Amino acid sequence: MQTEKQSRDVFYVSDGTAITCETVGHVVLGQFPFYANEKTFPFVESEEKLTELLKHIEISFQANGIKPLVFFSLVIAEFREKLLQANAHCYDVLESIVQRVKDDIHMEPVPKLQRSRSVSKDTDTYFDRIAAIEYTLAHDDGISLKGLEQADIILLGVSRSGKTPTSLYMAMQFGLRVVNYPYIDDDIRGLKLLPEFEIYRHKLFGLTIAPERLTEIRQNRLAGSEYASTAQCQHELANVEALFRREAIPYINTTSLSVEEISTRVLEKTGLKRRLF
Amino acid sequence: MQTEKQSRDVFYVSDGTAITCETVGHVVLGQFPFYANEKTFPFVESEEKLTELLKHIEISFQANGIKPLVFFSLVIAEFREKLLQANAHCYDVLESIVQRVKDDIHMEPVPKLQRSRSVSKDTDTYFDRIAAIEYTLAHDDGISLKGLEQADIILLGVSRSGKTPTSLYMAMQFGLRVVNYPYIDDDIRGLKLLPEFEIYRHKLFGLTIAPERLTEIRQNRLAGSEYASTAQCQHELANVEALFRREAIPYINTTSLSVEEISTRVLEKTGLKRRLF
Repeated sequence: MQTEKQSRDVFYVSDGTAITCETVGHVVLGQFPFYANEKTFPFVESEEKLTELLKHIEISFQANGIKPLVFFSLVIAEFREKLLQANAHCYDVLESIVQRVKDDIHMEPVPKLQRSRSVSKDTDTYFDRIAAIEYTLAHDDGISLKGLEQADIILLGVSRSGKTPTSLYMAMQFGLRVVNYPYIDDDIRGLKLLPEFEIYRHKLFGLTIAPERLTEIRQNRLAGSEYASTAQCQHELANVEALFRREAIPYINTTSLSVEEISTRVLEKTGLKRRLF
Repeated sequence: MQTEKQSRDVFYVSDGTAITCETVGHVVLGQFPFYANEKTFPFVESEEKLTELLKHIEISFQANGIKPLVFFSLVIAEFREKLLQANAHCYDVLESIVQRVKDDIHMEPVPKLQRSRSVSKDTDTYFDRIAAIEYTLAHDDGISLKGLEQADIILLGVSRSGKTPTSLYMAMQFGLRVVNYPYIDDDIRGLKLLPEFEIYRHKLFGLTIAPERLTEIRQNRLAGSEYASTAQCQHELANVEALFRREAIPYINTTSLSVEEISTRVLEKTGLKRRLF
Protein backbone atom coordinates (compact mmCIF):
# COMPACT_ATOMS: atom_id res chain seq x y z
CA MET A 1 0.00 0.00 0.00
CA GLN A 2 1.39 3.35 -0.99
CA THR A 3 1.29 6.54 1.01
CA GLU A 4 0.27 9.59 -0.96
CA LYS A 5 2.23 12.12 1.07
CA GLN A 6 3.59 12.78 4.53
CA SER A 7 1.61 15.96 5.13
CA ARG A 8 -2.03 16.84 4.54
CA ASP A 9 -4.42 19.72 4.99
CA VAL A 10 -7.24 18.96 7.41
CA PHE A 11 -10.40 21.03 7.90
CA TYR A 12 -12.75 20.94 10.87
CA VAL A 13 -16.14 22.30 9.85
CA SER A 14 -19.32 22.84 11.82
CA ASP A 15 -22.35 25.06 12.19
CA GLY A 16 -21.36 25.19 15.88
CA THR A 17 -18.00 25.57 17.63
CA ALA A 18 -16.48 22.60 15.74
CA ILE A 19 -15.05 21.37 19.03
CA THR A 20 -16.62 17.93 18.56
CA CYS A 21 -15.21 17.70 15.03
CA GLU A 22 -11.79 18.67 16.32
CA THR A 23 -11.93 16.17 19.15
CA VAL A 24 -12.91 13.28 16.88
CA GLY A 25 -10.63 14.29 14.01
CA HIS A 26 -7.68 14.74 16.30
CA VAL A 27 -8.01 11.25 17.78
CA VAL A 28 -8.56 9.68 14.34
CA LEU A 29 -5.51 11.43 12.92
CA GLY A 30 -3.47 10.28 15.91
CA GLN A 31 -3.66 6.81 14.34
CA PHE A 32 -2.12 7.87 11.03
CA PRO A 33 1.56 8.65 10.53
CA PHE A 34 1.35 11.96 8.69
CA TYR A 35 1.60 15.59 9.69
CA ALA A 36 -1.78 17.32 9.73
CA ASN A 37 -1.97 20.97 8.80
CA GLU A 38 -5.21 21.78 10.62
CA LYS A 39 -7.69 24.59 10.07
CA THR A 40 -11.03 25.09 11.80
CA PHE A 41 -14.17 26.66 10.30
CA PRO A 42 -16.73 27.10 13.06
CA PHE A 43 -20.23 28.61 12.75
CA VAL A 44 -20.71 27.77 9.05
CA GLU A 45 -24.30 28.96 9.11
CA SER A 46 -24.40 31.29 6.10
CA GLU A 47 -23.85 31.06 2.35
CA GLU A 48 -20.91 33.44 2.71
CA LYS A 49 -19.10 31.24 5.20
CA LEU A 50 -19.78 28.14 3.15
CA THR A 51 -18.41 29.81 0.02
CA GLU A 52 -15.33 30.92 1.95
CA LEU A 53 -14.78 27.38 3.20
CA LEU A 54 -15.22 25.82 -0.24
CA LYS A 55 -12.71 28.29 -1.63
CA HIS A 56 -10.14 27.25 0.97
CA ILE A 57 -10.72 23.58 0.26
CA GLU A 58 -10.24 24.12 -3.47
CA ILE A 59 -7.08 26.17 -2.93
CA SER A 60 -5.70 23.35 -0.76
CA PHE A 61 -6.51 20.77 -3.42
CA GLN A 62 -4.97 22.84 -6.21
CA ALA A 63 -1.86 23.67 -4.19
CA ASN A 64 -1.13 20.16 -2.96
CA GLY A 65 -2.56 18.07 -5.75
CA ILE A 66 -4.25 15.82 -3.20
CA LYS A 67 -7.62 16.04 -1.51
CA PRO A 68 -7.65 17.52 2.00
CA LEU A 69 -9.53 15.74 4.78
CA VAL A 70 -12.68 17.36 6.17
CA PHE A 71 -14.21 16.35 9.51
CA PHE A 72 -17.60 18.01 9.62
CA SER A 73 -21.00 18.33 11.18
CA LEU A 74 -23.61 20.38 9.33
CA VAL A 75 -27.34 20.28 9.89
CA ILE A 76 -28.44 22.23 6.80
CA ALA A 77 -28.84 19.62 4.04
CA GLU A 78 -28.01 22.00 1.22
CA PHE A 79 -24.69 22.93 2.88
CA ARG A 80 -23.84 19.27 3.41
CA GLU A 81 -24.44 18.48 -0.23
CA LYS A 82 -22.30 21.34 -1.46
CA LEU A 83 -19.49 20.32 0.87
CA LEU A 84 -19.69 16.70 -0.28
CA GLN A 85 -19.12 17.83 -3.88
CA ALA A 86 -15.81 19.54 -2.99
CA ASN A 87 -12.44 18.04 -3.90
CA ALA A 88 -12.00 16.60 -0.43
CA HIS A 89 -12.44 13.45 1.63
CA CYS A 90 -15.36 14.36 3.89
CA TYR A 91 -16.31 12.63 7.14
CA ASP A 92 -19.50 13.43 9.02
CA VAL A 93 -18.45 12.82 12.62
CA LEU A 94 -21.97 12.16 13.91
CA GLU A 95 -24.25 11.06 11.09
CA SER A 96 -23.58 7.32 11.01
CA ILE A 97 -23.94 7.01 14.77
CA VAL A 98 -27.15 9.06 14.82
CA GLN A 99 -28.60 6.81 12.11
CA ARG A 100 -27.70 3.65 13.99
CA VAL A 101 -29.12 4.95 17.27
CA LYS A 102 -32.31 5.90 15.44
CA ASP A 103 -32.67 2.39 14.00
CA ASP A 104 -31.81 0.71 17.29
CA ILE A 105 -34.18 2.59 19.56
CA HIS A 106 -36.92 3.35 17.02
CA MET A 107 -36.95 7.02 17.75
CA GLU A 108 -36.69 9.92 15.31
CA PRO A 109 -33.77 12.28 15.80
CA VAL A 110 -34.49 15.99 15.88
CA PRO A 111 -31.44 17.49 14.17
CA LYS A 112 -30.58 20.93 15.40
CA LEU A 113 -27.83 23.42 14.87
CA GLN A 114 -24.87 22.49 17.06
CA ARG A 115 -25.98 24.40 20.09
CA SER A 116 -25.51 21.58 22.56
CA ARG A 117 -23.44 23.87 24.73
CA SER A 118 -25.68 26.87 24.42
CA VAL A 119 -26.42 28.91 27.50
CA SER A 120 -30.01 29.66 26.78
CA LYS A 121 -30.93 25.99 26.96
CA ASP A 122 -30.29 25.61 30.61
CA THR A 123 -29.46 28.63 32.71
CA ASP A 124 -29.15 26.71 35.99
CA THR A 125 -26.52 24.41 34.54
CA TYR A 126 -24.67 27.44 33.24
CA PHE A 127 -24.68 29.14 36.64
CA ASP A 128 -23.53 25.89 38.28
CA ARG A 129 -20.59 25.70 35.96
CA ILE A 130 -19.57 29.34 36.41
CA ALA A 131 -19.96 28.98 40.17
CA ALA A 132 -17.70 25.91 40.12
CA ILE A 133 -15.01 27.85 38.21
CA GLU A 134 -15.23 30.76 40.64
CA TYR A 135 -15.14 28.58 43.70
CA THR A 136 -12.13 26.73 42.34
CA LEU A 137 -10.28 29.96 41.49
CA ALA A 138 -10.95 31.31 44.98
CA HIS A 139 -9.57 28.11 46.51
CA ASP A 140 -6.54 27.65 44.28
CA ASP A 141 -3.14 27.07 45.86
CA GLY A 142 -4.32 27.45 49.45
CA ILE A 143 -5.60 31.02 48.91
CA SER A 144 -8.62 30.30 51.06
CA LEU A 145 -9.75 27.42 53.25
CA LYS A 146 -13.17 28.89 53.89
CA GLY A 147 -16.36 27.24 52.67
CA LEU A 148 -14.83 23.77 52.51
CA GLU A 149 -18.28 22.33 53.13
CA GLN A 150 -19.10 23.29 49.53
CA ALA A 151 -16.04 21.57 48.07
CA ASP A 152 -16.51 18.45 45.98
CA ILE A 153 -12.86 17.53 46.43
CA ILE A 154 -9.68 18.82 48.08
CA LEU A 155 -6.42 18.13 46.24
CA LEU A 156 -3.16 17.99 48.18
CA GLY A 157 0.43 17.85 46.93
CA VAL A 158 3.79 19.57 46.64
CA SER A 159 4.34 22.56 44.36
CA ARG A 160 4.21 21.55 40.66
CA SER A 161 2.54 18.21 41.14
CA GLY A 162 -0.34 19.23 38.87
CA LYS A 163 -2.91 20.58 41.34
CA THR A 164 -3.87 23.87 39.68
CA PRO A 165 -4.42 22.72 36.08
CA THR A 166 -6.26 19.65 37.34
CA SER A 167 -8.50 21.75 39.59
CA LEU A 168 -9.39 24.17 36.80
CA TYR A 169 -10.03 21.39 34.32
CA MET A 170 -12.34 19.56 36.74
CA ALA A 171 -14.26 22.78 37.38
CA MET A 172 -14.54 23.71 33.70
CA GLN A 173 -15.21 20.28 32.26
CA PHE A 174 -17.12 18.55 35.04
CA GLY A 175 -18.59 21.44 37.06
CA LEU A 176 -16.84 20.37 40.26
CA ARG A 177 -15.83 22.69 43.11
CA VAL A 178 -12.19 21.96 43.76
CA VAL A 179 -9.92 23.15 46.55
CA ASN A 180 -6.19 22.67 46.20
CA TYR A 181 -3.60 23.08 48.88
CA PRO A 182 0.19 23.00 48.43
CA TYR A 183 2.64 21.58 50.92
CA ILE A 184 5.52 23.99 50.95
CA ASP A 185 9.01 23.65 52.27
CA ASP A 186 8.43 25.29 55.65
CA ASP A 187 5.92 22.80 56.90
CA ILE A 188 7.22 19.76 55.09
CA ARG A 189 9.02 18.23 58.07
CA GLY A 190 6.80 16.42 60.53
CA LEU A 191 3.92 17.09 58.20
CA LYS A 192 0.48 16.98 59.76
CA LEU A 193 -3.01 17.22 58.42
CA LEU A 194 -4.34 20.76 58.81
CA PRO A 195 -7.08 20.95 61.46
CA GLU A 196 -9.34 22.59 58.82
CA PHE A 197 -9.28 19.35 56.83
CA GLU A 198 -10.08 17.06 59.74
CA ILE A 199 -13.84 16.91 59.24
CA TYR A 200 -13.48 16.77 55.46
CA ARG A 201 -11.18 13.76 55.33
CA HIS A 202 -13.50 12.06 52.87
CA LYS A 203 -12.86 14.87 50.37
CA LEU A 204 -9.06 14.70 50.52
CA PHE A 205 -7.10 13.40 47.54
CA GLY A 206 -3.35 13.48 46.99
CA LEU A 207 -1.27 14.04 43.88
CA THR A 208 2.30 12.86 43.71
CA ILE A 209 4.90 12.66 40.96
CA ALA A 210 8.27 11.04 40.26
CA PRO A 211 11.17 13.08 41.74
CA GLU A 212 12.95 13.18 38.33
CA ARG A 213 9.87 14.60 36.62
CA LEU A 214 9.28 17.13 39.41
CA THR A 215 12.90 18.25 39.12
CA GLU A 216 12.49 18.67 35.36
CA ILE A 217 9.31 20.73 35.78
CA ARG A 218 10.80 22.93 38.51
CA GLN A 219 14.02 23.43 36.54
CA ASN A 220 11.85 24.64 33.66
CA ARG A 221 10.48 27.25 36.07
CA LEU A 222 13.47 28.19 38.26
CA ALA A 223 16.60 26.67 36.80
CA GLY A 224 19.44 26.07 39.25
CA SER A 225 17.40 26.88 42.37
CA GLU A 226 17.36 24.89 45.60
CA TYR A 227 13.59 24.54 44.99
CA ALA A 228 14.31 22.67 41.75
CA SER A 229 17.13 20.47 43.09
CA THR A 230 16.76 16.72 43.02
CA ALA A 231 17.45 16.46 46.75
CA GLN A 232 14.72 18.97 47.58
CA CYS A 233 12.17 17.31 45.29
CA GLN A 234 12.93 13.88 46.77
CA HIS A 235 12.70 15.25 50.29
CA GLU A 236 9.33 16.94 49.77
CA LEU A 237 7.81 14.02 47.94
CA ALA A 238 8.93 11.46 50.50
CA ASN A 239 7.38 13.50 53.31
CA VAL A 240 4.11 14.17 51.53
CA GLU A 241 3.69 10.56 50.40
CA ALA A 242 4.36 9.44 53.98
CA LEU A 243 1.58 11.78 55.10
CA PHE A 244 -0.83 10.39 52.50
CA ARG A 245 -0.12 6.85 53.67
CA ARG A 246 -0.24 7.69 57.37
CA GLU A 247 -3.55 9.49 57.06
CA ALA A 248 -4.98 6.99 54.54
CA ILE A 249 -5.49 9.71 51.91
CA PRO A 250 -5.94 8.16 48.47
CA TYR A 251 -3.43 9.45 45.93
CA ILE A 252 -2.20 8.96 42.40
CA ASN A 253 1.06 9.50 40.60
CA THR A 254 0.71 12.13 37.87
CA THR A 255 4.14 11.63 36.26
CA SER A 256 3.12 10.51 32.77
CA LEU A 257 -0.46 11.77 32.81
CA SER A 258 -2.11 14.69 31.04
CA VAL A 259 -4.49 17.03 32.85
CA GLU A 260 -7.41 15.10 31.34
CA GLU A 261 -6.02 11.79 32.51
CA ILE A 262 -5.33 13.01 36.05
CA SER A 263 -8.86 14.44 36.30
CA THR A 264 -10.45 11.28 34.99
CA ARG A 265 -8.45 9.06 37.34
CA VAL A 266 -9.35 11.23 40.33
CA LEU A 267 -13.04 10.98 39.45
CA GLU A 268 -12.73 7.26 38.96
CA LYS A 269 -11.09 6.70 42.33
CA THR A 270 -13.39 8.99 44.28
CA GLY A 271 -16.63 8.03 42.57
CA LEU A 272 -17.41 11.73 42.00
CA LYS A 273 -19.94 12.19 39.26
CA ARG A 274 -19.12 14.24 36.19
CA ARG A 275 -21.56 16.90 35.17
CA LEU A 276 -21.46 17.12 31.41
CA PHE A 277 -21.97 20.42 29.62
CA MET B 1 -42.61 4.65 14.81
CA GLN B 2 -42.89 3.70 18.46
CA THR B 3 -40.68 4.92 21.27
CA GLU B 4 -39.50 2.27 23.68
CA LYS B 5 -39.19 4.47 26.75
CA GLN B 6 -38.49 8.03 27.81
CA SER B 7 -35.36 7.29 29.80
CA ARG B 8 -32.30 5.16 29.06
CA ASP B 9 -29.03 4.14 30.60
CA VAL B 10 -26.01 5.29 28.61
CA PHE B 11 -22.42 4.12 29.10
CA TYR B 12 -19.26 5.84 27.90
CA VAL B 13 -16.43 3.34 27.68
CA SER B 14 -12.79 3.72 26.71
CA ASP B 15 -9.29 2.48 27.39
CA GLY B 16 -8.42 6.18 27.81
CA THR B 17 -10.22 9.04 29.55
CA ALA B 18 -13.47 8.44 27.60
CA ILE B 19 -13.69 12.18 27.00
CA THR B 20 -14.02 11.69 23.23
CA CYS B 21 -16.79 9.11 23.76
CA GLU B 22 -18.59 11.50 26.08
CA THR B 23 -18.26 14.39 23.66
CA VAL B 24 -19.63 12.42 20.72
CA GLY B 25 -22.30 10.59 22.71
CA HIS B 26 -23.50 13.78 24.32
CA VAL B 27 -24.00 15.53 20.98
CA VAL B 28 -25.68 12.48 19.43
CA LEU B 29 -28.05 12.15 22.39
CA GLY B 30 -28.86 15.84 22.13
CA GLN B 31 -30.80 14.93 18.99
CA PHE B 32 -33.04 12.40 20.72
CA PRO B 33 -35.92 13.31 23.02
CA PHE B 34 -35.22 11.04 25.98
CA TYR B 35 -33.50 11.46 29.31
CA ALA B 36 -30.05 9.85 29.42
CA ASN B 37 -28.83 8.34 32.65
CA GLU B 38 -25.10 8.55 31.93
CA LYS B 39 -22.21 6.60 33.42
CA THR B 40 -18.57 6.70 32.35
CA PHE B 41 -16.05 3.82 32.45
CA PRO B 42 -12.60 5.21 31.64
CA PHE B 43 -9.33 3.25 31.49
CA VAL B 44 -10.88 -0.11 30.65
CA GLU B 45 -7.48 -1.72 30.15
CA SER B 46 -7.76 -4.83 32.30
CA GLU B 47 -9.92 -7.96 32.46
CA GLU B 48 -11.18 -6.83 35.87
CA LYS B 49 -12.45 -3.50 34.59
CA LEU B 50 -14.04 -5.10 31.57
CA THR B 51 -15.82 -7.64 33.76
CA GLU B 52 -17.03 -4.86 36.05
CA LEU B 53 -18.35 -2.92 33.05
CA LEU B 54 -20.12 -5.94 31.56
CA LYS B 55 -21.75 -6.58 34.93
CA HIS B 56 -23.11 -3.03 35.03
CA ILE B 57 -24.44 -3.33 31.48
CA GLU B 58 -26.22 -6.56 32.29
CA ILE B 59 -27.69 -5.12 35.50
CA SER B 60 -29.01 -2.17 33.49
CA PHE B 61 -30.56 -4.48 30.89
CA GLN B 62 -32.17 -6.67 33.52
CA ALA B 63 -33.45 -3.75 35.56
CA ASN B 64 -34.94 -1.78 32.67
CA GLY B 65 -35.85 -4.53 30.25
CA ILE B 66 -34.27 -2.55 27.41
CA LYS B 67 -30.74 -2.40 26.12
CA PRO B 68 -28.61 0.49 27.32
CA LEU B 69 -26.60 2.52 24.81
CA VAL B 70 -22.81 2.23 24.85
CA PHE B 71 -20.53 4.76 23.16
CA PHE B 72 -17.08 3.24 23.18
CA SER B 73 -13.54 3.22 21.93
CA LEU B 74 -11.41 0.16 22.71
CA VAL B 75 -8.21 -0.82 20.98
CA ILE B 76 -7.86 -4.36 22.36
CA ALA B 77 -9.79 -6.58 19.93
CA GLU B 78 -10.73 -9.16 22.53
CA PHE B 79 -12.31 -6.49 24.75
CA ARG B 80 -14.24 -5.07 21.80
CA GLU B 81 -15.66 -8.47 20.95
CA LYS B 82 -16.78 -9.19 24.48
CA LEU B 83 -18.42 -5.78 24.71
CA LEU B 84 -20.24 -6.29 21.41
CA GLN B 85 -21.79 -9.50 22.80
CA ALA B 86 -23.37 -7.64 25.72
CA ASN B 87 -27.09 -6.84 25.88
CA ALA B 88 -26.52 -3.31 24.68
CA HIS B 89 -26.55 -1.11 21.59
CA CYS B 90 -22.86 -0.41 21.06
CA TYR B 91 -21.37 2.40 18.98
CA ASP B 92 -17.67 2.67 18.24
CA VAL B 93 -17.20 6.42 18.04
CA LEU B 94 -14.07 6.27 15.86
CA GLU B 95 -13.92 2.98 13.98
CA SER B 96 -16.01 3.79 10.89
CA ILE B 97 -14.20 7.08 10.34
CA VAL B 98 -10.77 5.49 10.78
CA GLN B 99 -11.71 2.83 8.22
CA ARG B 100 -12.88 5.40 5.71
CA VAL B 101 -9.80 7.57 6.15
CA LYS B 102 -7.65 4.47 5.67
CA ASP B 103 -9.41 3.59 2.42
CA ASP B 104 -9.35 7.17 1.15
CA ILE B 105 -5.70 7.95 1.76
CA HIS B 106 -4.30 4.44 1.32
CA MET B 107 -2.45 4.49 4.59
CA GLU B 108 -2.55 1.92 7.38
CA PRO B 109 -3.73 3.18 10.76
CA VAL B 110 -1.60 2.37 13.80
CA PRO B 111 -4.18 1.83 16.54
CA LYS B 112 -2.96 2.72 19.98
CA LEU B 113 -4.38 2.98 23.44
CA GLN B 114 -6.18 6.30 23.77
CA ARG B 115 -3.21 8.29 24.90
CA SER B 116 -3.72 11.18 22.50
CA ARG B 117 -3.53 13.57 25.42
CA SER B 118 -0.64 11.90 27.15
CA VAL B 119 2.14 14.02 28.56
CA SER B 120 5.00 11.76 27.67
CA LYS B 121 4.30 12.16 23.95
CA ASP B 122 5.29 15.76 23.80
CA THR B 123 6.76 17.49 26.81
CA ASP B 124 7.13 20.87 25.10
CA THR B 125 3.46 21.00 24.25
CA TYR B 126 2.64 20.09 27.82
CA PHE B 127 4.81 22.88 29.22
CA ASP B 128 3.30 25.33 26.74
CA ARG B 129 -0.16 24.45 27.94
CA ILE B 130 0.69 24.69 31.63
CA ALA B 131 2.49 27.98 31.01
CA ALA B 132 -0.59 29.34 29.23
CA ILE B 133 -2.79 28.41 32.20
CA GLU B 134 -0.40 30.04 34.65
CA TYR B 135 -0.01 33.18 32.62
CA THR B 136 -3.77 33.47 32.29
CA LEU B 137 -4.33 32.95 36.03
CA ALA B 138 -1.73 35.59 36.84
CA HIS B 139 -3.47 38.05 34.50
CA ASP B 140 -7.06 37.33 35.48
CA ASP B 141 -9.34 40.21 36.38
CA GLY B 142 -6.69 42.92 36.07
CA ILE B 143 -4.45 41.37 38.77
CA SER B 144 -1.37 42.18 36.72
CA LEU B 145 -0.68 44.17 33.58
CA LYS B 146 2.95 43.11 33.38
CA GLY B 147 4.33 40.98 30.57
CA LEU B 148 1.61 42.03 28.10
CA GLU B 149 4.07 41.41 25.28
CA GLN B 150 3.56 37.68 25.91
CA ALA B 151 -0.23 37.88 25.75
CA ASP B 152 -2.02 36.30 22.81
CA ILE B 153 -5.14 38.33 23.54
CA ILE B 154 -6.46 40.90 26.02
CA LEU B 155 -10.16 40.66 26.87
CA LEU B 156 -12.02 43.75 28.10
CA GLY B 157 -15.49 44.09 29.57
CA VAL B 158 -17.63 44.92 32.58
CA SER B 159 -17.84 42.62 35.59
CA ARG B 160 -19.75 39.39 34.79
CA SER B 161 -19.56 39.69 31.02
CA GLY B 162 -17.81 36.31 30.79
CA LYS B 163 -14.13 37.28 30.80
CA THR B 164 -12.74 34.87 33.41
CA PRO B 165 -14.32 31.59 32.25
CA THR B 166 -13.54 32.47 28.63
CA SER B 167 -9.91 33.25 29.47
CA LEU B 168 -9.41 30.00 31.37
CA TYR B 169 -11.10 27.96 28.67
CA MET B 170 -8.94 29.49 25.95
CA ALA B 171 -5.81 28.77 27.99
CA MET B 172 -6.80 25.21 28.85
CA GLN B 173 -8.28 24.18 25.51
CA PHE B 174 -6.23 26.18 23.02
CA GLY B 175 -3.01 26.95 24.93
CA LEU B 176 -3.45 30.72 24.60
CA ARG B 177 -2.09 33.31 27.01
CA VAL B 178 -5.03 35.49 27.92
CA VAL B 179 -5.17 38.74 29.88
CA ASN B 180 -8.52 40.00 31.07
CA TYR B 181 -9.28 43.40 32.48
CA PRO B 182 -12.56 44.51 34.04
CA TYR B 183 -14.05 47.98 33.74
CA ILE B 184 -15.37 48.80 37.17
CA ASP B 185 -17.75 51.45 38.31
CA ASP B 186 -15.16 54.02 39.41
CA ASP B 187 -13.60 54.52 36.03
CA ILE B 188 -16.67 53.89 33.93
CA ARG B 189 -17.46 57.54 33.20
CA GLY B 190 -15.33 59.15 30.53
CA LEU B 191 -13.73 55.79 29.98
CA LYS B 192 -10.34 55.81 28.35
CA LEU B 193 -8.00 53.17 27.12
CA LEU B 194 -5.31 52.40 29.71
CA PRO B 195 -1.88 53.64 28.60
CA GLU B 196 -0.55 50.10 29.20
CA PHE B 197 -2.78 48.86 26.39
CA GLU B 198 -1.79 51.51 23.87
CA ILE B 199 0.96 49.57 22.10
CA TYR B 200 -1.01 46.32 22.28
CA ARG B 201 -4.13 47.62 20.56
CA HIS B 202 -4.04 44.74 18.09
CA LYS B 203 -4.51 42.31 21.01
CA LEU B 204 -7.58 44.00 22.50
CA PHE B 205 -10.97 42.32 22.27
CA GLY B 206 -14.20 43.32 23.98
CA LEU B 207 -17.00 41.27 25.51
CA THR B 208 -20.43 42.77 25.99
CA ILE B 209 -23.78 41.35 27.05
CA ALA B 210 -27.46 42.35 27.06
CA PRO B 211 -28.32 44.53 30.10
CA GLU B 212 -31.19 42.18 31.07
CA ARG B 213 -28.89 39.17 31.10
CA LEU B 214 -26.18 41.02 33.02
CA THR B 215 -28.77 42.06 35.61
CA GLU B 216 -29.89 38.44 35.95
CA ILE B 217 -26.32 37.21 36.41
CA ARG B 218 -25.45 39.90 38.93
CA GLN B 219 -28.70 39.36 40.85
CA ASN B 220 -27.73 35.72 41.09
CA ARG B 221 -24.53 36.92 42.77
CA LEU B 222 -25.59 39.93 44.81
CA ALA B 223 -29.37 40.15 44.86
CA GLY B 224 -30.83 43.58 45.46
CA SER B 225 -27.51 45.43 45.20
CA GLU B 226 -26.87 48.62 43.28
CA TYR B 227 -24.25 46.63 41.37
CA ALA B 228 -26.97 44.29 40.10
CA SER B 229 -29.56 46.97 39.28
CA THR B 230 -30.80 47.36 35.73
CA ALA B 231 -29.84 51.03 35.70
CA GLN B 232 -26.27 50.29 36.75
CA CYS B 233 -25.88 47.46 34.23
CA GLN B 234 -27.23 49.65 31.41
CA HIS B 235 -24.97 52.50 32.43
CA GLU B 236 -21.80 50.40 32.51
CA LEU B 237 -22.55 48.58 29.27
CA ALA B 238 -23.38 51.77 27.37
CA ASN B 239 -20.09 53.33 28.44
CA VAL B 240 -17.95 50.30 27.69
CA GLU B 241 -19.57 49.71 24.31
CA ALA B 242 -19.02 53.37 23.46
CA LEU B 243 -15.34 52.88 24.31
CA PHE B 244 -15.09 49.79 22.10
CA ARG B 245 -16.58 51.69 19.17
CA ARG B 246 -14.57 54.86 19.76
CA GLU B 247 -11.30 52.94 19.95
CA ALA B 248 -12.23 50.51 17.17
CA ILE B 249 -11.87 47.51 19.50
CA PRO B 250 -13.61 44.46 18.02
CA TYR B 251 -16.21 42.98 20.37
CA ILE B 252 -18.94 40.38 20.59
CA ASN B 253 -22.13 40.00 22.54
CA THR B 254 -21.98 36.97 24.87
CA THR B 255 -25.63 36.98 25.94
CA SER B 256 -26.77 33.62 24.63
CA LEU B 257 -23.37 32.00 24.21
CA SER B 258 -21.63 29.28 26.19
CA VAL B 259 -17.98 29.57 27.20
CA GLU B 260 -17.05 27.32 24.26
CA GLU B 261 -19.01 29.47 21.83
CA ILE B 262 -17.54 32.74 23.11
CA SER B 263 -14.01 31.33 22.86
CA THR B 264 -14.58 30.01 19.37
CA ARG B 265 -16.05 33.29 18.15
CA VAL B 266 -13.16 35.27 19.61
CA LEU B 267 -10.67 33.02 17.82
CA GLU B 268 -12.65 33.30 14.63
CA LYS B 269 -12.73 37.10 14.71
CA THR B 270 -9.11 37.56 15.72
CA GLY B 271 -7.63 34.87 13.51
CA LEU B 272 -5.74 33.44 16.51
CA LYS B 273 -4.71 29.86 15.91
CA ARG B 274 -5.87 27.11 18.21
CA ARG B 275 -3.27 24.76 19.59
CA LEU B 276 -4.90 21.40 19.95
CA PHE B 277 -3.96 19.04 22.77
